[in-house]
Order: sequence, then C-alpha cells, then structure tokens
Amino acid sequence: MAKRIRLEKRIVSESDRLAAGLARRFAEARVLVVNLMSSPGAGKTTLLEETARRMSGDLRMAVIEGDLATDRDARRILKAGIPCHQINTGGGCHLSARQVADALRQFDLGQLDVLFIENVGNLVCPAEFDLGERRRVVVASTPEGDDKPIKYPVAFHKADCVVLNKIDLLAATDFSPEAFRQFVRGLKPSVPILELSCRTGEGMEGWLTWVRTERQAAARGTPRGCD
Amino acid sequence: MAKRIRLEKRIVSESDRLAAGLARRFAEARVLVVNLMSSPGAGKTTLLEETARRMSGDLRMAVIEGDLATDRDARRILKAGIPCHQINTGGGCHLSARQVADALRQFDLGQLDVLFIENVGNLVCPAEFDLGERRRVVVASTPEGDDKPIKYPVAFHKADCVVLNKIDLLAATDFSPEAFRQFVRGLKPSVPILELSCRTGEGMEGWLTWVRTERQAAARGTPRGCD
Repeated sequence: MAKRIRLEKRIVSESDRLAAGLARRFAEARVLVVNLMSSPGAGKTTLLEETARRMSGDLRMAVIEGDLATDRDARRILKAGIPCHQINTGGGCHLSARQVADALRQFDLGQLDVLFIENVGNLVCPAEFDLGERRRVVVASTPEGDDKPIKYPVAFHKADCVVLNKIDLLAATDFSPEAFRQFVRGLKPSVPILELSCRTGEGMEGWLTWVRTERQAAARGTPRGCD
Repeated sequence: MAKRIRLEKRIVSESDRLAAGLARRFAEARVLVVNLMSSPGAGKTTLLEETARRMSGDLRMAVIEGDLATDRDARRILKAGIPCHQINTGGGCHLSARQVADALRQFDLGQLDVLFIENVGNLVCPAEFDLGERRRVVVASTPEGDDKPIKYPVAFHKADCVVLNKIDLLAATDFSPEAFRQFVRGLKPSVPILELSCRTGEGMEGWLTWVRTERQAAARGTPRGCD
C-alpha cells in the first residue's frame, strides 16, 4: 500500500509540474485558457458553437476537444469556423496536462485570445486535474436536477464560474434555480452563476460578457491567481 | 512504468477476484443483482423510486446507493419504503467490489429478490469495474443527446439493457430516438432498449417486465453468463 501511495504521489506531482509550466506559457502569451467541465450532454459543445457564432470577429478563439471516442465534437466546432484539435482518450476519464501540452503544437498561442479546453464529459475525475487553465467553468443543465452541486462538490468547489444551461426546459422539470444557487453558494459563496439557454439564446449575453472580461484580465499578463 | 503496470494489474486482479466471489454469492442466494450506471442526473434514483412504487408487494427489493457525497438518494429510496444502504465514495469515481461486499452486511440476501446497486453518476469509470452483478443497466436520458452511446462506448457495449429515460422531453430537444437506437445497436446489436418516462409513467411497464423476467432467470439459480 505504501508503494501505491508513493506511486500516486509521483504521478500527481509530474502532472502538477506540467500544468504549472502550461500556466506560465498561457500567461506569457496573454491568452485566456478556460477548462470546461460537465456531465455528459450538459451542453459544453453547444455553448462553444454559440459562443463562436456570437463572438465572430470579436475574439480569436480555438478549442481543444476531449472525448473518449469519435471526432463528432471537433467537427461541430470546425463547422462553426473555429480552429479545433480533437483528443481521444480511449478509456481515459479526463484530459491530462500532457495531452494538452501535445495538442498545443497545433496552435500558435500568440495568435489567440481565448483557448477553450472542453474536457471529457464527467463531473468527477476532470476536477482533480489541473491543465494549466486560467479559469475553470462547470456547465450544469436543468434536466440533471438542482442537487448536483452537493452531490459532486469537488467540481463545483473548484469552479471559477458556473453556467446553468437549458433554462428553456425549466417548466418541464422539477429543477429549482433557487435551490441550485444555494447549493453552489454553500460550496463557493462568490462564484458567478450564469443562467442561460444555448437553444433560445436567453442569458447568452451574460456569458459573453464574462468571457470578454476574463479575456481582458488575461491580456494584462498577470499570472493566474494574482488578479 | 513497468512498476506502474504491474501495480495496476495487481489492483485489477484483486478487484476481479472479489467480484467473482460476489457473483457466486448472488447466484447461490438466487437474487437478481443489477448494477445501474448513468451520467449524473439521468434519473437512476427516480427509476428506482418508481420501480418500488409499482413493484410494491410483488418483489422484495433493496438498494445500495453510491454517491461522492450526501445521503440524499438513500433518503429518497427509504422514503419509497425500500431498504437502502448509502455508500459515500469521497472523491471516488465509481463503486468498488470491496465497497459492495462491505455494504452486504446490511442485508439478508436470502430475504431479497432484487438488489439494485446505483453506481456513482459517471458514464466512464464505473463501466470498468465488475461488482459481481448479474445484469448491467445503462440509463440514458433524452436531454443528454442521442450521440452518447458512441461517445461513451464502453458503458454501452457492456450493458445488458439500455433504458432511455425522459422521453416526455423529446419534443423539447433535438434528440432522435432512431439515431440513438442505431448507435446502441452498432455497439451491441441485441441489447434491449427500453424507452420510458419516470415522470409520466409511459413505458414503465416494459421496464418492470424486464426486471421480473430477469428475476425469474436469477431465481433458477444458474450462474451469471450461463443463461
């Protein structure tokens, strides 16, 4: 058992070392890097498609897509006119700093304003792994139920922003936005909670404002954690 | 790296050995054990509540609940009149055979017809771990999108039954039941796909029939994989 613990520590510290190096590169390039996490099907890819459509010409975006299998999401992003690189993890339940470092060969960071990393759809494992991102966003959606924050506390506790998607389905579900907000605030009192529907466009302006504001902070070149 | 591989092999074989022992116990007790997997919020707990309500007096049920945190789901199941034991995994992304073996101390298998194990909400990791179950059920839901089978192929490939929940939300989403069925059949041609809504009750009879049929097979005492 002692051997197992030592081994785990070594793997984690190697990953953290890589992530810290990525964070430095991102800060130097003054690019906003956002690590997007959610359950499968909460709407991460649709959020990026809609962001691309509305940001067109405004900010230079790129996307790294993480999925167990298929390049379906990358094809959707490319169709939206955004440079995109697909990572297939095989059975892997989260993206790693090593995979992100390798994927960066596909992009010229100096030519980007915002890089989104769409993690594997999984509300558990991705939360444990730093990818060097400046900001972490958790996307929840109303059909999943309002109790997800307290049932998956690590992901929500580490979030810099919580997006609540599919508010167009509120009337068709038992979801209580008030309960959801209370559960999130109980874990992280000051985190922004942005309620929106990628489908109807309601609330999208708030999300775009958050991205633009964070982009301006990244462009000032301060290291993450220092603003 | 060789050390890491040897260590992983040792952990997996210990887990498989435990699971094989559980499978023998379940077969001897002639109890149907179902391992339920899904994304967070697909409706596993609601399916169990509705199953309990409709099976009342018909079959003797019990539930093992797996969650990272909280006993919310166990409280819901107990309120439905069903014996239930909650496992909190902390950060753990799946239930283990060891956790199930420990939880069994709470139940008299000889007094049960069906034991449901509700795994952690995660469409990736639980699929890799045998818990000794006779049957594996994946619960998908329409708001997650029809492409989940090919994006999370391991879970669907290993399923003995696929439940498609929340068909009451079909009209409010872009979900294509035909595409979903094709994706599932591409991975596992003969798996039953049961379309239902726990909310409206539509399709629930098909699910109850599946449970009763599988219960009869388990009651014949044949080991799993031999019927």
